[in-house]
Amino acid sequence: MTDFEKQIAFVVEMDKIKKIMRQTYICDGSRKENDAEHSWHLALMAFVFADYANEPVDVLKTMKMVLLHDVIEIDAGDTYAYDTEGNKTKKEREKKAADRIFGILPEAQEKEYRGLWDEFEAMETPEAKYANMLDKVQPLLLNDASGGTSWEEHGVKKSQVMARNARTHEGSEQLWDYARMLIEKNVDAGHLADA
Amino acid sequence: MTDFEKQIAFVVEMDKIKKIMRQTYICDGSRKENDAEHSWHLALMAFVFADYANEPVDVLKTMKMVLLHDVIEIDAGDTYAYDTEGNKTKKEREKKAADRIFGILPEAQEKEYRGLWDEFEAMETPEAKYANMLDKVQPLLLNDASGGTSWEEHGVKKSQVMARNARTHEGSEQLWDYARMLIEKNVDAGHLADA
Repeated sequence: MTDFEKQIAFVVEMDKIKKIMRQTYICDGSRKENDAEHSWHLALMAFVFADYANEPVDVLKTMKMVLLHDVIEIDAGDTYAYDTEGNKTKKEREKKAADRIFGILPEAQEKEYRGLWDEFEAMETPEAKYANMLDKVQPLLLNDASGGTSWEEHGVKKSQVMARNARTHEGSEQLWDYARMLIEKNVDAGHLADA
Repeated sequence: MTDFEKQIAFVVEMDKIKKIMRQTYICDGSRKENDAEHSWHLALMAFVFADYANEPVDVLKTMKMVLLHDVIEIDAGDTYAYDTEGNKTKKEREKKAADRIFGILPEAQEKEYRGLWDEFEAMETPEAKYANMLDKVQPLLLNDASGGTSWEEHGVKKSQVMARNARTHEGSEQLWDYARMLIEKNVDAGHLADA
């Protein structure tokens, strides 16, 4: 295969992300969203909210990172945030998936994109902290807009949401403040268990 | 409303793009894709294929452009490429939609994003030519992968596809060469009428 053929194969393979369903409902509550839609939303937020990142971020790098951060779920599947059993094997499943999926690409791109995925997971750089913040805040926006449908469906508790968001403030204090307000609002409305 | 509240309102409003359905089927042919999925795919292609742009492009600008290029369809709807009647009123409907949708944002962002949308539509800059090429080649990849389902459904002719793609080569000769090969392949396979 030429490099170009490998790139075409990668782009066509990535289409499968449109079938990986998440537990979050779209804003009108009519159905759950998939990984492609979620990633589109994060990439949009990445440049709309760039000025609120705690540290200056490379916006292009962040956008590539969020557009790629879930492609490993083509093989590994989506592990729901509050699925304790699934989260035990998540890391291993996702590493194996990353090997195969980024391995479709020519070497230089495989290295770059795998690097972005590893960086997102490690959550140490300004871009990775900002991207992880977006990945946490976007479902909060959707959960709030849909009246907490997904939280109610799974009986999610405020303490679980807070634990999952322990590091969200590292990406943007401004967005985390807003997200905290949404969490409280949904506790008050009875959409999120106050425990 | 503060600027931040306007930005949040914009990001939540944009969720509606997940419900704007296109006529193109996803690669496995199981269902049609929506604008959010389509835009995610274009943004991915924008950086994967950046080296094949005929002229050097600002990749970040191109990615913003493709992520935003269809948001006006929230109000204007998706006009199928080969819908003659719908295409007569398309420009006017889309301009009105752009006024409302980008108008949700603070002024500086309204100006920037509206500018990107106008630039995409005008198709004069290297980024706009490259982005328009991606917008045309992506459905060709999907149509080919799904066995021409959408073309067969609408009885689309090769001459219509060629006319619609008259300027695709301006974005990337390399990708247009590949797309042309796919078109011929689908004519030979009987998925696209040879007329």
